[in-house]
Amino acid sequence: MADWQMISGGITAPRGYKAAGITAGLKPSGAPDLALILSETDAIAAGVFTTTVVRAACVDYCRQRLQKKASARAILCNAGQANAATGEQGWQDALDTAGWLAAELNIDPDSVLLASTGVIGQRMKVDAFKAGIPQLVAAASETGGDAAAQAIVTTDLVTKSIALETQIEGRPVRMGGISKGSGMIHPNMATMLGFVTCDAAVSTVLWQEMLSRAADKSFNQITVDGDTSTNDTLIALANGQSRTSAITEMGPEAEKLEAMLTEVCQYLAKAIARDGEGATCLIEVQVTGAPSDADARQVAKTVVGSSLFKSAIFGNDPNWGRIAAAAGRADVPFDQDKLQIKLGEFLLMDNGQPLPFDRPAASNYLKETSANSSYEKDGKTLHRVDDPVIVAIDLGNGSGSGKAWGCDLSYDYVKINAEYTT
Amino acid sequence: MADWQMISGGITAPRGYKAAGITAGLKPSGAPDLALILSETDAIAAGVFTTTVVRAACVDYCRQRLQKKASARAILCNAGQANAATGEQGWQDALDTAGWLAAELNIDPDSVLLASTGVIGQRMKVDAFKAGIPQLVAAASETGGDAAAQAIVTTDLVTKSIALETQIEGRPVRMGGISKGSGMIHPNMATMLGFVTCDAAVSTVLWQEMLSRAADKSFNQITVDGDTSTNDTLIALANGQSRTSAITEMGPEAEKLEAMLTEVCQYLAKAIARDGEGATCLIEVQVTGAPSDADARQVAKTVVGSSLFKSAIFGNDPNWGRIAAAAGRADVPFDQDKLQIKLGEFLLMDNGQPLPFDRPAASNYLKETSANSSYEKDGKTLHRVDDPVIVAIDLGNGSGSGKAWGCDLSYDYVKINAEYTT
Repeated sequence: MADWQMISGGITAPRGYKAAGITAGLKPSGAPDLALILSETDAIAAGVFTTTVVRAACVDYCRQRLQKKASARAILCNAGQANAATGEQGWQDALDTAGWLAAELNIDPDSVLLASTGVIGQRMKVDAFKAGIPQLVAAASETGGDAAAQAIVTTDLVTKSIALETQIEGRPVRMGGISKGSGMIHPNMATMLGFVTCDAAVSTVLWQEMLSRAADKSFNQITVDGDTSTNDTLIALANGQSRTSAITEMGPEAEKLEAMLTEVCQYLAKAIARDGEGATCLIEVQVTGAPSDADARQVAKTVVGSSLFKSAIFGNDPNWGRIAAAAGRADVPFDQDKLQIKLGEFLLMDNGQPLPFDRPAASNYLKETSANSSYEKDGKTLHRVDDPVIVAIDLGNGSGSGKAWGCDLSYDYVKINAEYTT
Repeated sequence: MADWQMISGGITAPRGYKAAGITAGLKPSGAPDLALILSETDAIAAGVFTTTVVRAACVDYCRQRLQKKASARAILCNAGQANAATGEQGWQDALDTAGWLAAELNIDPDSVLLASTGVIGQRMKVDAFKAGIPQLVAAASETGGDAAAQAIVTTDLVTKSIALETQIEGRPVRMGGISKGSGMIHPNMATMLGFVTCDAAVSTVLWQEMLSRAADKSFNQITVDGDTSTNDTLIALANGQSRTSAITEMGPEAEKLEAMLTEVCQYLAKAIARDGEGATCLIEVQVTGAPSDADARQVAKTVVGSSLFKSAIFGNDPNWGRIAAAAGRADVPFDQDKLQIKLGEFLLMDNGQPLPFDRPAASNYLKETSANSSYEKDGKTLHRVDDPVIVAIDLGNGSGSGKAWGCDLSYDYVKINAEYTT
């Protein structure tokens, strides 16, 4: 299935997209805080949003817009203020920002989608926002993907960006993505955001179905601390500029496109998990032998979200008991006497019984994986997401499989989240 | 409803009970590790157990025994080994230990209930266990409640014990309880245990119903780290030695008994939450205005289990945004524009809007409540559970109400759970 290659360019790698990221003055730090993703032509637009009751104005806005018409020309994203818990004023501010961009671009306001991240309960700095719009539009370019990736982050340590290319009908079809997310601090820098651009031609209904399935296998399978944000947003555009035939039903081409979409989403999601607050490594939990794929994903997410398990990984402790205990409370039926657990290459438990294993070597596996999961380049710290700590669990109760990703729980997580205000 | 008074004596305060706690040599530390609760006559027995798939032999044993007959004479509890993930051997060991006690007491083995706590995946030290039985039985006395409370703990910093007395038909009816639980360490010191003794006369069915409801409002409403143990067990005995008329259906007397049972369970549950690993305070989240009581409890438990919220409390940070965000993701419907949040006496949010409040004073409320939540007596540190940090949330969507209890997330939680093995 993986017949694609990685290319450069991020979200501006697909044909017909421009992007920009500028400093409008919304963040007190003076870092870039306003991002634009622009499709030259109307793009099919699909979205997946936070399910929480307490949510931002931009989330309600996007839901309404996508119900009205499932296409868009632009995604406008600000960092600094989340525009959540801002009531009627926040709703009006959302409408205004979309209107300002639409006027500057001379497009229908309904063609603008919105996302925000930052402090909850503060009104957006609308004067700075409005003043930044012309500058943002002027900055939009076919090489602006990295600038946009930079402008959507808050407390992230690294930016997250990817681009892939495959062949359909002998023509290149490209997909790019950026994401942000780390946790919630300062005091409420919330939000996981993901934006995907693609130049494939695909039907509205199919694109939304593909995105929902991909989200279930990626963004919905990561956890940093179990807290859902008020602003979580994933939007995917497909503008047909690859000039391939429209994909309107499932089949080999659709499967190829969905596999690539899933890969992009998984990369972006893993990058968020690795960048979790205080994290020293990325953890991948692989579950097999479950009654269904959904069951497997549920067990994987429960294990990777266990504070006890996460603390053990931080301490390089190959603690199979915590893995077994977390798997057992995931509300998925299995026979504990068939449980198998592996940590990397180390078989820790089989048929429900603990096995003797080389504990120092297993601890060393954790230590080395963690040490290798970040590296220095050009004076900056970067993360590697292709070599996570791997926990493999077989439930012995079916053929369902699934994965989830997370990070360890360190002193720094507590420090970051305890010591802001006081 | 609260027409009871606190009395001394713990689980041996009710008539007709003896208890003991001795050092049998199951814990490497040499601390007491074997406890017995004994009713002179057959007592109605009700139980609530862990719902996890990966569970200890003693849990399966108790479930089977209580299905066979809902009465018991004795509860035998060991600390040191959890007898979980021990397969067929563990099952046989459970049967053996019950048999040894039954022989020593000259009672039916089916009249013995079992509980274990300690390391998962290690066989119990059965030789030491067997040798300890005669000593344990010999030590059983009407003043042995404290010794039993001491012998069931593992990593707990304090023992948890309570006794209450009320009047039914002009006669005293007494209830006692002990519990243990703190988290999971070393490497898997799991388990929340609760044992309640009572001398009321009550029908089997009613007693089990009362216990299930009380557990839903107490033990099921606390969270230290979201991890469910393999061994969680709550058993309540009622032996009728108060010589009051049998309570066989709901009515004023039954309500009085159930209220007292709920109070005992809540006290014991709160004591566990306050003693959570690394905790510096007890947190009580009160939810009103929910569609149902169950909904209210769900929101309360979601908030009190949020790592972000728990970290903020540790940092004395009156962070309403995290409270609102956690409430919103609890899968309970409400209108975010009606949300109200109070921290102690400080109104932080009303009608979904953040309010100005005295931030230093609110932070000081957290600091002082934490400082007062433990005290020194006779050279020992003791906990206070009657003055928690209080978060009050009104959802504005009904008349359902409920509470949950937890503790803050501190550096010490991570330290305790990360640094055992390595």
